[in-house]
Amino acid sequence: MKRFNIAILSLVSLALISAQVKAQQKNFNQLFTAGHANAFIGGLYDGFYPYWQLKQHGNFGLGAPDKLDGELVILEGKIYQTQHTGKTFEVDPKSLTPFAAVNYFHADKAIKLSTEYNKASLMALLDSITANSIGIYAIHLKGKFKHIKTRAFPPVNQKPYTPLAQLLNKQHFFEYKALDGDFVGYNLPAYMEGANITGYHFHFISAERNAGGHVIDFTTEKDMMVEIDFLDSFTVQFPQTNDFKSFDFKKDRSEEVKSVEIGKKE
Amino acid sequence: MKRFNIAILSLVSLALISAQVKAQQKNFNQLFTAGHANAFIGGLYDGFYPYWQLKQHGNFGLGAPDKLDGELVILEGKIYQTQHTGKTFEVDPKSLTPFAAVNYFHADKAIKLSTEYNKASLMALLDSITANSIGIYAIHLKGKFKHIKTRAFPPVNQKPYTPLAQLLNKQHFFEYKALDGDFVGYNLPAYMEGANITGYHFHFISAERNAGGHVIDFTTEKDMMVEIDFLDSFTVQFPQTNDFKSFDFKKDRSEEVKSVEIGKKE
Repeated sequence: MKRFNIAILSLVSLALISAQVKAQQKNFNQLFTAGHANAFIGGLYDGFYPYWQLKQHGNFGLGAPDKLDGELVILEGKIYQTQHTGKTFEVDPKSLTPFAAVNYFHADKAIKLSTEYNKASLMALLDSITANSIGIYAIHLKGKFKHIKTRAFPPVNQKPYTPLAQLLNKQHFFEYKALDGDFVGYNLPAYMEGANITGYHFHFISAERNAGGHVIDFTTEKDMMVEIDFLDSFTVQFPQTNDFKSFDFKKDRSEEVKSVEIGKKE
Repeated sequence: MKRFNIAILSLVSLALISAQVKAQQKNFNQLFTAGHANAFIGGLYDGFYPYWQLKQHGNFGLGAPDKLDGELVILEGKIYQTQHTGKTFEVDPKSLTPFAAVNYFHADKAIKLSTEYNKASLMALLDSITANSIGIYAIHLKGKFKHIKTRAFPPVNQKPYTPLAQLLNKQHFFEYKALDGDFVGYNLPAYMEGANITGYHFHFISAERNAGGHVIDFTTEKDMMVEIDFLDSFTVQFPQTNDFKSFDFKKDRSEEVKSVEIGKKE
């Protein structure tokens, strides 16, 4: 009778383990976004989604901290914040993000670059690798950078917050030379505009995890490693806040988003 | 030793069961969409997502069958197809859908209506219940309808398929009087336009499951039951097809979507 019980329990356990693995696999190839890009860009900087929960949806990604206060990188399951002072540290899992995108990173393609690249030539290379503009791509670069320019925003403190495109004069820029580190980012298709930031978008974290920021410009050394993860679905988790419910979604913010991404008005 | 094993296995089983339940709960309050509304409206009618897999994301919803061929309703975990002939039946789980939206339905609000409603007055009532235009709402109506007008498209057969807005003259309309049944549908906010069909959108299935279609117009009897499920996230699963990759997403199809929803050009 006991042996029978054990057999049954083992079978139940195995079935459940397999169901669990399957449930987890579902999340592979999926981009998870907490928050809505246009709402964030429009001034909804109050965090609503805890970091510990964000980690359940991926080990790789980028975002913004509560009340703006810098930039976020998620890499190898750790979440780093770079403030406008340059100070870079692991976040408190109980803190909140107003906007972040993550996925479980599994490289579908990995290549070692043999020459130096700048921003334009690397984007052209990535375009040629991914071969179409309709996919959702998570992109990881790892290696030595000849030069990197990043930026981070200072925290906001008084509501209603100023839209991000009007805070560009408050950005702090950082310039690094000959620095090892990682680019963590995405290339998202035009049909995801609104809820997400489309096109190429990278955040940086140094190998020593003591410098970072939103990537503005860069030049790589010769032997950079590039990994690309092809995703095929996305989930958007909306804030259940009154700010979000009363936000004006009808306004076209594509120009604002663009100026925030490149760090200046065109 | 055996008793010890049993205890361990029981604990493992319990932990896994609880993890499973938790994993499933994640999907509650989430709208899952297979396919992309604009791509579907634009002529991508080839199914790519099996019904058995769709059922893993919800027990309630609506959509379209492979090659158009009518309209779909998902209710209480069963998927029904209504063809342009009016023929209504449960689908083969191995068949594919080009576009469908589902959720696990759990009523957050339920009300019994005490007077008759028509399309306009019911939408106004629902607007007043949901109180804001930013939420994602799954809506279930159940009861007797005084009058219902539905439609279903005939199947397409030659590629490239004609966009849906140009097939409106091919619609078959059905008019029913004094019929019991269910409305299954959604009210989706403007920021979901593109990937989904925004605003109110209902499909019908009769109580005897032998009539259905996309709802064009209706009048209810007095004691209709209305249930609303408030959702707060959505997932979009894209087709990995060449048709999808080469689809023109830059074209504004909002007018086309509107004419398809109401069944005529305005």
